[in-house]
Amino acid sequence: MRKGDLTRQAILDRATGLASKVGLEGLTIGALATELQLSKSGLFAHFHSKEALQLQVLDHGAAVFVESVIRPALAEPRGEPRMRALFERWLDWTQSSPLPGGCLFVQAAVELDDRPGPVRDRLVQFQRQWLGVIVTSMELGIDAGAFHNVADPEQFAHDVYGVMLAYHHASRLLRDPRAEARARRAFDALLQSAVAPAETHR
Amino acid sequence: MRKGDLTRQAILDRATGLASKVGLEGLTIGALATELQLSKSGLFAHFHSKEALQLQVLDHGAAVFVESVIRPALAEPRGEPRMRALFERWLDWTQSSPLPGGCLFVQAAVELDDRPGPVRDRLVQFQRQWLGVIVTSMELGIDAGAFHNVADPEQFAHDVYGVMLAYHHASRLLRDPRAEARARRAFDALLQSAVAPAETHR
Repeated sequence: MRKGDLTRQAILDRATGLASKVGLEGLTIGALATELQLSKSGLFAHFHSKEALQLQVLDHGAAVFVESVIRPALAEPRGEPRMRALFERWLDWTQSSPLPGGCLFVQAAVELDDRPGPVRDRLVQFQRQWLGVIVTSMELGIDAGAFHNVADPEQFAHDVYGVMLAYHHASRLLRDPRAEARARRAFDALLQSAVAPAETHR
Repeated sequence: MRKGDLTRQAILDRATGLASKVGLEGLTIGALATELQLSKSGLFAHFHSKEALQLQVLDHGAAVFVESVIRPALAEPRGEPRMRALFERWLDWTQSSPLPGGCLFVQAAVELDDRPGPVRDRLVQFQRQWLGVIVTSMELGIDAGAFHNVADPEQFAHDVYGVMLAYHHASRLLRDPRAEARARRAFDALLQSAVAPAETHR
């Protein structure tokens, strides 16, 4: 990696953390310059516009998410272990130190839903991909006999994402100390209702 | 009602709708003046500060929510009918024309979670009250024998709120035409798991 790349990665790490707190709309080049104690003109040379900065932060966040959540979870065996790993690693991700404001994508989803444009389009693409990973993991689990074949993979992914959003709300807004226990219990109930009868009744 | 009160209500209706789109942080007195084609100085005379405007919009939104969701649902019989009414009326609320940007509180929850202060405190109070209404409705349903007594009212409220958040995400960000059907199916599954055995097995 060249020096310029390292600097860029370091800036994007900090920008992603800042966006998790102030939102993508709050992530102006000026705000980032203040956060990093760098000159605004230097950052303009890197990113050219607020929209380009927002897109790069989303791309950077997605790349980190793939490396820390999706890739290691997909290394787990199909069925319950893989599904649990996706959920547990998502929990770790929202609590990770690079994201002081919680999940960047949860924040951006609410912020951008009424703002048409390339940043919203990119976010929608990432959210569909993430839900798609859960859908595919359920389908592969059904093929492997780990989940019963009446399980509806898209409904399951939708419901799991609801568990994630409820966790984010309870932990970040309400500061509820039981948020994580409640999220695990909700996820377990969903997972158990999908597990193939041979496993639940043994 | 005096003329001044009517004007204030009308302004707060519009301000609440605007906040559902641009967020409470985007709800500046200047933005509201542009939206209403009123003078900024006139609005300052009404609201004095952005924070006062934000608090009044939250209070106004909460009052509308009580009238259109909570009060009519509490008029339904305890147990399943009341719980379904809370859910169905919440769905209507997020789709209602005064809220072009969806539920004001869902938007504010993500926006304010990292912004300590009186506006966040007020929102937390409202969100706890809303979850509390679901908890109490579950407890009264257990007392009435409509829900079985192993149901955990706080877990149920947490899970129902997750269904609501997933609906908001799927409908508003992803524009998923199946969002409402998925939300109903998820809610039905939660409700059925709480319904007293005598009813589920009859």
